[in-house]
Amino acid sequence: MAEMTAMMQDTITALVEARKYNTVRDVMVTMNPADIAAVLEDVSPAVLPVVFRLLPKELAAETFVEMSSENEELLIRAFSDSELKAVVEELYADDAADIVEEMPANLVSRILQQADPAFRKTINEILKYPEDSAGSIMTTEYVDLHPDMTVTAAMAHIRRTGVDKETINTCYVTEKKGRRLVGAVSIRTLLLADEDATVGDIMKTNIVSVSTLEDQEAIAQLFSKYDLIAMPVVDGENRMVGIVTVDDAIDVMEEEVTEDIEVMAAITPTDKPYLQTSVWRIWASRIPWLLLMMVSATFTGLIISSFESALAVLPVLTAFIPMLMDTGGNSGSQTSVTIIRGISLGDIEFRDIFRVMWKEFRVSMLCGVCLAVCTSAKILLVDFLLLGNGTGNWPENFLVAAVVGVTLIVTVFAAKLIGCTLPLLAKKIGFDPAVMASPFITTIVDAVSLLVYFAVASAIMGSYM
Amino acid sequence: MAEMTAMMQDTITALVEARKYNTVRDVMVTMNPADIAAVLEDVSPAVLPVVFRLLPKELAAETFVEMSSENEELLIRAFSDSELKAVVEELYADDAADIVEEMPANLVSRILQQADPAFRKTINEILKYPEDSAGSIMTTEYVDLHPDMTVTAAMAHIRRTGVDKETINTCYVTEKKGRRLVGAVSIRTLLLADEDATVGDIMKTNIVSVSTLEDQEAIAQLFSKYDLIAMPVVDGENRMVGIVTVDDAIDVMEEEVTEDIEVMAAITPTDKPYLQTSVWRIWASRIPWLLLMMVSATFTGLIISSFESALAVLPVLTAFIPMLMDTGGNSGSQTSVTIIRGISLGDIEFRDIFRVMWKEFRVSMLCGVCLAVCTSAKILLVDFLLLGNGTGNWPENFLVAAVVGVTLIVTVFAAKLIGCTLPLLAKKIGFDPAVMASPFITTIVDAVSLLVYFAVASAIMGSYM
Repeated sequence: MAEMTAMMQDTITALVEARKYNTVRDVMVTMNPADIAAVLEDVSPAVLPVVFRLLPKELAAETFVEMSSENEELLIRAFSDSELKAVVEELYADDAADIVEEMPANLVSRILQQADPAFRKTINEILKYPEDSAGSIMTTEYVDLHPDMTVTAAMAHIRRTGVDKETINTCYVTEKKGRRLVGAVSIRTLLLADEDATVGDIMKTNIVSVSTLEDQEAIAQLFSKYDLIAMPVVDGENRMVGIVTVDDAIDVMEEEVTEDIEVMAAITPTDKPYLQTSVWRIWASRIPWLLLMMVSATFTGLIISSFESALAVLPVLTAFIPMLMDTGGNSGSQTSVTIIRGISLGDIEFRDIFRVMWKEFRVSMLCGVCLAVCTSAKILLVDFLLLGNGTGNWPENFLVAAVVGVTLIVTVFAAKLIGCTLPLLAKKIGFDPAVMASPFITTIVDAVSLLVYFAVASAIMGSYM
Repeated sequence: MAEMTAMMQDTITALVEARKYNTVRDVMVTMNPADIAAVLEDVSPAVLPVVFRLLPKELAAETFVEMSSENEELLIRAFSDSELKAVVEELYADDAADIVEEMPANLVSRILQQADPAFRKTINEILKYPEDSAGSIMTTEYVDLHPDMTVTAAMAHIRRTGVDKETINTCYVTEKKGRRLVGAVSIRTLLLADEDATVGDIMKTNIVSVSTLEDQEAIAQLFSKYDLIAMPVVDGENRMVGIVTVDDAIDVMEEEVTEDIEVMAAITPTDKPYLQTSVWRIWASRIPWLLLMMVSATFTGLIISSFESALAVLPVLTAFIPMLMDTGGNSGSQTSVTIIRGISLGDIEFRDIFRVMWKEFRVSMLCGVCLAVCTSAKILLVDFLLLGNGTGNWPENFLVAAVVGVTLIVTVFAAKLIGCTLPLLAKKIGFDPAVMASPFITTIVDAVSLLVYFAVASAIMGSYM
């Protein structure tokens, strides 16, 4: 598919350059809005409005919401008031609110002027909800039925109002007075039901709803858990105010996963795709973490400094420092990343902490012993016997191998225990568990592994140092 | 919501222990299948079949598909043939195939015996498709219309057959002869259309379809890009064979993201949730990578060994090794993780490689210079002036700070360039880009940073070594 889009981009660009606008239109009307938007990303700003105006009204609005905010802004600036009105009229409230949020203030007032008063009020209400809340991603265009309607009346209501709704696949049932949500009924149930039955008879009442202030990540999880295609949003009094549809839930999932992955890799999340993000913005999202981690690496440096004299006597010990630190860091991040993902998916909760610790304790023993045996053997056979990098004194060589092996076991144990408890503790006290991933854990584990290394070394080889 | 499930679990467990089965049933029928399945995970194996039998037939089947495969297996073993038949009859083909795939051979033949011949044939066909292909996740229960049907006839057809379909929200239009896919029509369009219009008049023809062998990850991306709730699956001759629904696409997304995250953290992906995975399985998914990375860390050890004599003369250099290696590794993994996620989301492709490299080059210069200035200043002011960890010779101290600073710039540059090119090259040659994430890159960057460090040190401070 990606290749197809690229091919289409080349074709359209060539046709636009040749000013074959009729052909461009004929090609575009056969395409999906998302594909047209992708193709238009490569059209030069000067001709973009010309090409966009070729689209029929409805397709134009559908394409508009799929475009990057740069292109949206460019088009709004080029639009006449009546053109802007035509696009705004076709938008759903959630999309309109998203667009308004991205635009500079002078364009916002132009856009809102073109919306009719009721729509303007709806957009303003959505904008008032906190970022990343259900209220901010919901739309208000849903089908609203009442329990005492007959199936025939409900179907007539849907036929009359359905064209403006974001979905008719699930209809919501509210009390006539007070708009309290009492149930939901799928279009399939309505179609297959007896025409004289009432909506109250056939509706499902065990429905999943969320409050306007619910966090969007939790909502996405509910979609996945309950296999929903839309979810009702209610206010504090259980009055229906809107719906979130599955396509928006999928966008949220992707956004939240990207954020988690970025935080785990020590990057401040940005909300734009990489190629659209400026070099300064990328730098700003990375440098604070690099500086922070550099400062923490100072501690490991201080630890090494304080053992400088020991290392000068037994320089062979220095060679194993990177391996010990890397293995510790890797062991820890394997665990922390697994736990963080489990928390995100709702598989692991804080109350599982002791089960998790017991599991990681056993895994760490298996991994630690296995690594220790392999490393000690390798040090003796390859490093010392084959390459001759040892001390030249075989009893001493055996002791060095033992020091490294014991250090590995302790380090892996510590790394895995830190790796599983920190994310769960972070979650418990309301922090993002993803922050507790590899770079953070690596820094702690680095210090731990060095301290263990020197402690074990002086315990076993004290007489040589 | 998680707390609610936990509370329900306690309530149901208490009621089951008190053998208040009528109350258990009354509570369960008010719940969602996914919640019932979650609650049943905590019921002891001995009473699970008893509790499950309390559920009405349809709810029982819906709950069954939401359960862990352990519980499914346990129930199938406890079922009589007629109970098994009742559950199998209510399943959709894709769910049935998923269950069959998880069960031991003797149970599979029992399950298939209870399916009617046509359903058995469908299940077997789905099982024949390669794992992770469209064919393996599709279902065959979709609404099939023909272009010459009138809207009235189509609606009558849907009313007659809709109850057994996984979704009726989108109906697919195929040629009467040959079953070639020619269009799709939503139930909304049908409801709002003139009753005498034909399906051919109102259907959309620019539809997105996938072949049976298409990779499931690509399918999930299409759902996100085109905001779909179902997608048709066709064979090599564009004949319609099934549909993938959005709930399955969401499951695939979560699975693929988990896999990506695990691979990036150097873990072989397992297909079960963490708490259900055995200690041995977790160990097996982690230890090969730890061993591999330990072996590669040997190279960094060898590099240090070969500069042992230089380090013995200027031991102050040793203290900065962890910081240089950590910063290099962190810089590299920031970039690689960003690029890997961009590739997964379809934002970055191989043809963008030069744009990406140019961007990372500029970011690396900004980050490198910034880190170098801060570190050199910190080394001089804190380490040497404040803590007195320097060489005691100030011109020498300045040179050490310069060596560290220059090394940082070169290392960050190398790390970011390696971090952006490796994932794109992996993708190009058909490997999983996620393999090229932090641990792999860290190992390469560790070696690079040490070589750079010693090269810079001997260039600047050669006379002291």
